Amino acid sequence: MNEVTDLSYALDTFYFLICGALVMWMAAGFSMLEAGMVRGKNTAEILTKNIALFAIACTMYLLVGYAIMYSSGEGGFLPSLSFLIGGENSVEAALGGGEDAPYYAMRADFFFQVVFVATAMSIVSGAVAERMKLWAFLAFAVVMTSVIYPVSGYWTWGGGWLDAVGYSDYAGSGIVHMAGAAAALAGVLILGPRRGKYGKDGAIHAIPGANMPLATLGTFILWMGWFGFNGGSELKLSDVASANNVAQVFVNTNAAAAAGVIAALVLAKLWFRKADLTMALNGALAGLVAITADPLSPTAQGAALIGAIGGVIVVGSIVMLDKMKLDDPVGAISVHGVVGIWGVLAVPFNNADASFGAQLIGIAGIFAWVFLASLVVWLVLKAIMGIRVSEEEEYEGVDIAECGLEAYPEFSVKK
Amino acid sequence: MNEVTDLSYALDTFYFLICGALVMWMAAGFSMLEAGMVRGKNTAEILTKNIALFAIACTMYLLVGYAIMYSSGEGGFLPSLSFLIGGENSVEAALGGGEDAPYYAMRADFFFQVVFVATAMSIVSGAVAERMKLWAFLAFAVVMTSVIYPVSGYWTWGGGWLDAVGYSDYAGSGIVHMAGAAAALAGVLILGPRRGKYGKDGAIHAIPGANMPLATLGTFILWMGWFGFNGGSELKLSDVASANNVAQVFVNTNAAAAAGVIAALVLAKLWFRKADLTMALNGALAGLVAITADPLSPTAQGAALIGAIGGVIVVGSIVMLDKMKLDDPVGAISVHGVVGIWGVLAVPFNNADASFGAQLIGIAGIFAWVFLASLVVWLVLKAIMGIRVSEEEEYEGVDIAECGLEAYPEFSVKK
Amino acid sequence: MNEVTDLSYALDTFYFLICGALVMWMAAGFSMLEAGMVRGKNTAEILTKNIALFAIACTMYLLVGYAIMYSSGEGGFLPSLSFLIGGENSVEAALGGGEDAPYYAMRADFFFQVVFVATAMSIVSGAVAERMKLWAFLAFAVVMTSVIYPVSGYWTWGGGWLDAVGYSDYAGSGIVHMAGAAAALAGVLILGPRRGKYGKDGAIHAIPGANMPLATLGTFILWMGWFGFNGGSELKLSDVASANNVAQVFVNTNAAAAAGVIAALVLAKLWFRKADLTMALNGALAGLVAITADPLSPTAQGAALIGAIGGVIVVGSIVMLDKMKLDDPVGAISVHGVVGIWGVLAVPFNNADASFGAQLIGIAGIFAWVFLASLVVWLVLKAIMGIRVSEEEEYEGVDIAECGLEAYPEFSVKK
Repeated sequence: MNEVTDLSYALDTFYFLICGALVMWMAAGFSMLEAGMVRGKNTAEILTKNIALFAIACTMYLLVGYAIMYSSGEGGFLPSLSFLIGGENSVEAALGGGEDAPYYAMRADFFFQVVFVATAMSIVSGAVAERMKLWAFLAFAVVMTSVIYPVSGYWTWGGGWLDAVGYSDYAGSGIVHMAGAAAALAGVLILGPRRGKYGKDGAIHAIPGANMPLATLGTFILWMGWFGFNGGSELKLSDVASANNVAQVFVNTNAAAAAGVIAALVLAKLWFRKADLTMALNGALAGLVAITADPLSPTAQGAALIGAIGGVIVVGSIVMLDKMKLDDPVGAISVHGVVGIWGVLAVPFNNADASFGAQLIGIAGIFAWVFLASLVVWLVLKAIMGIRVSEEEEYEGVDIAECGLEAYPEFSVKK
Repeated sequence: MNEVTDLSYALDTFYFLICGALVMWMAAGFSMLEAGMVRGKNTAEILTKNIALFAIACTMYLLVGYAIMYSSGEGGFLPSLSFLIGGENSVEAALGGGEDAPYYAMRADFFFQVVFVATAMSIVSGAVAERMKLWAFLAFAVVMTSVIYPVSGYWTWGGGWLDAVGYSDYAGSGIVHMAGAAAALAGVLILGPRRGKYGKDGAIHAIPGANMPLATLGTFILWMGWFGFNGGSELKLSDVASANNVAQVFVNTNAAAAAGVIAALVLAKLWFRKADLTMALNGALAGLVAITADPLSPTAQGAALIGAIGGVIVVGSIVMLDKMKLDDPVGAISVHGVVGIWGVLAVPFNNADASFGAQLIGIAGIFAWVFLASLVVWLVLKAIMGIRVSEEEEYEGVDIAECGLEAYPEFSVKK
Repeated sequence: MNEVTDLSYALDTFYFLICGALVMWMAAGFSMLEAGMVRGKNTAEILTKNIALFAIACTMYLLVGYAIMYSSGEGGFLPSLSFLIGGENSVEAALGGGEDAPYYAMRADFFFQVVFVATAMSIVSGAVAERMKLWAFLAFAVVMTSVIYPVSGYWTWGGGWLDAVGYSDYAGSGIVHMAGAAAALAGVLILGPRRGKYGKDGAIHAIPGANMPLATLGTFILWMGWFGFNGGSELKLSDVASANNVAQVFVNTNAAAAAGVIAALVLAKLWFRKADLTMALNGALAGLVAITADPLSPTAQGAALIGAIGGVIVVGSIVMLDKMKLDDPVGAISVHGVVGIWGVLAVPFNNADASFGAQLIGIAGIFAWVFLASLVVWLVLKAIMGIRVSEEEEYEGVDIAECGLEAYPEFSVKK
């Protein structure tokens, strides 16, 4: 029966790789979403941040982060260096059978994991857009993807204390999305809002994004990529039960996103009297974030309900954060943080193995770690190199100052 | 041999899910195509329509449409509620063997089907762009995806009378594409052309789309997604004959699209003396629509010929519809309707199991149902809430009126 | 055990088809990259070239090229007509077993190959952008994809003399990328630089691309598509060792691209004092091109090093080519040609089966053939129809002259 084991191993490996490629594609989604939601004068810089953070995440997680996150459970943070020294499952081990035989390529697992850390980091770039120094941001990306994310990733998916406590987070509403939002929140608090966003009289000035088609494209890319993000997190495809589960995850992921759009759009129409496209986009993402903590247990109708509630929450949260003068140009903290918490808390409604207690401990643990560690790093960076561009650079746009070029050099762009 | 059945089930399920994800991606393609082909002042609204219609299609088909389309053949429209109540193939049933054993996850089938209905609905949005009220359109989307498409879908793929008659339409040149175009045509007839499109002296004024790179991107997205659309419609991958068929479908789909581009571009050059990019894009889509009714039977060279004829037809049809003062900003009725008919009629040339008689009955049946049902719905919506924006809103652009924002707020855009 | 063979055949076929679809997607990547890097007045034309060249490549390779490239080894260029006459593996042959039994659909192989030739051709369009006549370019595309690429493809992948010599080029750093660059270089030499690019006093004038988000999107599309390009080139997935290899290829491809970004961005910052986004994008592509000749043998860290060196080379090469007054608007010759050579030469460092001698012979052989053959074709085209647009057309932009429309008709665009 070696041939059957060969095939099974190959199919599960391919499943990981294709899902990983879809998650990698989310990097393009974040880039387009953020490029569409900032002003033209800051667009080249946000694009530079996005491709550079993806590159840094892939490189640092390879060199350091993966070893931390999947260190052996025994010694805590003592890294297992098996990946770094180049191990791969031998054919003999894979075909040897038994409970512990590897059933897919280690490299495929790494590939699937590495694009997750990039996702977490992508969340940060949008929230601090239009005013943060490029190189300070990239320095933060090095620490976030080398250490901060891997440590809380170890706690949960790596077999650490949050896993032991019973924290349940299928594809990472908390582990990935809220973690990214926590790092973003720490940055936003230290950085302050964009100039002109909040008037002295308490007025809130909308700063429209320059390119709505790009933002919409980015949302669709993220939606598509999420099938890999959630669908791959079943971690196995090759039997009837697993295949049924993966199919359920695809259906639920799609249903939640669709319901998030509808809920956010209808709420925006009722509340603001306009079918605000940006709210529809955020509604889709909110539906996706909300279902990510458990896209398997609910029915499709249940998933739609979870997504719809996510869509309602994100609209309220965006308004609320603006009132609190927390300036987040793309709504990342609301989409990934606030709705991420909702997603984690929704798990026990459908999954008897999860408890509200463990979920709350998970939220508190991940948030506290990522927020505080990020706060320290942002403060250190502020002290060393500064994290905010000068007033003049902010007025002129960071594209020229940081990148030496313009995103749309031929189009007349308002400053 | 349970392990072999496990693997076969998993592979076919994965094949459906990946093909479904590619079809979902077509929603982004339609969005970008339409956003590129309308004017800047109507771009945010067409984006809103596109993401909202996709969300509505996914939600309504889940709640209502799927049950209608795949109701048991016995009672006609009596819906089978198996999906709604959450059934999934038991592991025992899947492994039990026999002719009737399910060979892939029901959820994967649903996922593949749900993105098809969204495709049909996406066709409508382009044809009625730049002048239809957003919420009237969304109301139509609810009816179209809940009832209109599922009923004719039941007639054909669900085992109804058109299936019994021998109507042959592999992936839906008629069932999906012409159906969408029929609904669009009904809307266009009631809605009338955009102001300024047709002069009182009979002159036809071109209204160029605002963003050709987006339109091109949308076409490439659709081209890619079509591999899932056609490739998944073989409905089985897991043996040599099926795998050969799926490969043939990929090759033929690509060959038809390529030949459609060449034919349309050369014809445009000869006719208009210009290598009109929009004709090249429509040629690609025409090739794809044409081959969709049977991407399996022709040789690759035959598929190229079918696609090339589609490319010629679409150019002629776009010119003809303009002379008839049927204003279709993106050419959707020509691409999906006129060429869809060509695709359906081309089937008997290569497939001995198909007959021209059955194909004509299919075209007439689907067109009559979708066109008339849509006409009624559009008229009801017109009576209740109106379907056309005011003259002033049309002049100013629907973005501000409907969505409260602009697609390109910083770029100087002509009104 | 027929069922196991069925499954294995289906899985390998699916693997080819999905990887092929990802490579097809690279056509969109080149289109967006080039559309973003040219000026607004030449954007519609470059889009037209890109979709048309893809269509021509797919059609001509189907009609002629594939037969040349995979003719039987015996008679050299005597084409095997098996594909053209429609052969496909019989179920009996596939299930018959034995060493020579086909293990995946021939059509899937064709599909995977046909998108490679389109990639090679896409490289040319960027280098000659903004000044070459559309139809001269398309005529070149016919010859390139029918004959020039297939001949050197036959030498290497088709079993010809370069294969016999031991030239090692896993997915085509030389066979595809450098070949495309060689054809581009021949074109650029005959065509000359864009007007205004090089001043009489030796000054080099930067001509910024009009749309950086598009260029970034194109790079991400190419990055994603490259998982198919390299990942599919293992040509087999269905056993443990092959699956391990495919996973290694995915990881290495990603690591090289990431390191290419970092290296190019840091070098640009140090050299030009700016984090030049276009250099980051070219760094990603350089990393991808560099690893393509052997994405299997290096460790992930080794792949990152190869990619980083590619990122350094591309920045230096772009500067150098500008000094040599070789005007390449998108840097295609540097990215695909110069870095392609680096990729081919890097193989022996990690792969004991490769030798520097054979690699040098391969580079020289492919370059000489493609460059000289292209030079002849360009000269013939120049004599027959001219290859350069008029001075006035170049000033006004080729969009109106060639395509009769503008890419961004509503945005005020600088001439």
